[in-house]
Amino acid sequence: MTASAAVTYRLTLAYHGGAFAGWQRQPGKETVQGCLENAARKIWGQPISMQASGRTDTGVHALGQVVSFQAPANHSPQTLIRALNANLPPTVRVLALRRAPQEFHARFSATGKIYEYRIWNAPQPDPFQLEFAWHVPRPLDLIQMRRAAKAFIGRHDFAAFTSNPGYARKTTVRTMRRITLRQQGPEIRLRFEADGFLYRMVRNLTGGLVQVGLGKLSSADLKKILAGRQRTAMPPTAPPHGLYLVKVFYARAKRGNSCAEPGDE
Amino acid sequence: MTASAAVTYRLTLAYHGGAFAGWQRQPGKETVQGCLENAARKIWGQPISMQASGRTDTGVHALGQVVSFQAPANHSPQTLIRALNANLPPTVRVLALRRAPQEFHARFSATGKIYEYRIWNAPQPDPFQLEFAWHVPRPLDLIQMRRAAKAFIGRHDFAAFTSNPGYARKTTVRTMRRITLRQQGPEIRLRFEADGFLYRMVRNLTGGLVQVGLGKLSSADLKKILAGRQRTAMPPTAPPHGLYLVKVFYARAKRGNSCAEPGDE
Repeated sequence: MTASAAVTYRLTLAYHGGAFAGWQRQPGKETVQGCLENAARKIWGQPISMQASGRTDTGVHALGQVVSFQAPANHSPQTLIRALNANLPPTVRVLALRRAPQEFHARFSATGKIYEYRIWNAPQPDPFQLEFAWHVPRPLDLIQMRRAAKAFIGRHDFAAFTSNPGYARKTTVRTMRRITLRQQGPEIRLRFEADGFLYRMVRNLTGGLVQVGLGKLSSADLKKILAGRQRTAMPPTAPPHGLYLVKVFYARAKRGNSCAEPGDE
Repeated sequence: MTASAAVTYRLTLAYHGGAFAGWQRQPGKETVQGCLENAARKIWGQPISMQASGRTDTGVHALGQVVSFQAPANHSPQTLIRALNANLPPTVRVLALRRAPQEFHARFSATGKIYEYRIWNAPQPDPFQLEFAWHVPRPLDLIQMRRAAKAFIGRHDFAAFTSNPGYARKTTVRTMRRITLRQQGPEIRLRFEADGFLYRMVRNLTGGLVQVGLGKLSSADLKKILAGRQRTAMPPTAPPHGLYLVKVFYARAKRGNSCAEPGDE
């Protein structure tokens, strides 16, 4: 493609994490990026590189992953949604696609994210929830968990709650805007909204909150772990199959932009 | 075991149909009966034979399958629930277990059943519903489907709606007590309550109703097919992964029985 003919697209994806070895393309493995780039190659007849708002691990689900890419402007968004979905396995679906400002980048332009962690809190697992929620058989004390979660709200160094990052991070400081815990029957949903998340941060925070819910750690213990900034005495990471990337936020585009602003989904 | 020491148990099961090659034990295949009988053998140290209210096909789910068996009365129901679940894969769970009258038989004592068929009616499949509902992309006319379903209510010969039964049936006459169609967002749930069901009857009735919902068959066509009693021009059978055995009904035991009556779940 010639640079002049390429436009930036933004697409929103849902996928079943259990069907993929994570987002990032890897040789010999079924990955979301691999499937999506293969589908795009069939449509444009040339390699198209896709950037996600963040890599999700093997088993982690997405309800609203955002992806950006540049490609020739020779198809309408509606045609592209149909064509991509026709070339993707049913375990991943393009929910929306539109043109974005030329400088839009799913990762660098993101201003925040919502993740949800689902727990199945009942003595027995539910045969229909095995791939969709973490089964915690002993009863969780939600009041204690909500109290403990307050320690995470605001601007903190979350170094204690990231697993071996694999790549250097400029900073491990993030701002947690909101955490909500809701229960409906045996299902507990923890929602985390922050300006960004470190590697495995939500699964580590959930692991810690579950220990509080089981009475094995106190709110004060968790606060101390956060302040210590060392991932040492942390409880086990919650498993990936309970985690959902729900939404990615982007700043509203400035007035006078020639392209439609991306806004929030 | 000695005959005098054996009592009859009734248990209620939920299972994920996608994990099993159906209910019935088959050599070299993972079946619900096979798993359950193996678990029972570990508990009692001898073969225990399990009878279900009906065989479910590969892929068909159960929310409330009922099973009867005879075994020595040397464990409490609570102990048995725990021990069976501990020896079963998480894709099948014992929800309830209790003693039943000696003559209770999950299949022969049944007086009725409820099946549910779930359809995902949206242009695109949902990555999280692939194993749990039949994806029908074109919009269904629920008003027409409800109208057509009325033809099935009451006592009818349902020979046109059974697939190759594989074994002789005394009669193909059944009484349909109720059919309800409910929609919530893209999900449509068809509930069928009858005194009994023929092999693949719910999946064939659903297949027919979906043809009506798509405008390919009229209510009158479906009525004619029912009256014709021949499975000839019938539309395709709905796939197994949308089907759920919800509930099995049993008559209340007579007063004065020494054992607790099984009642309805």
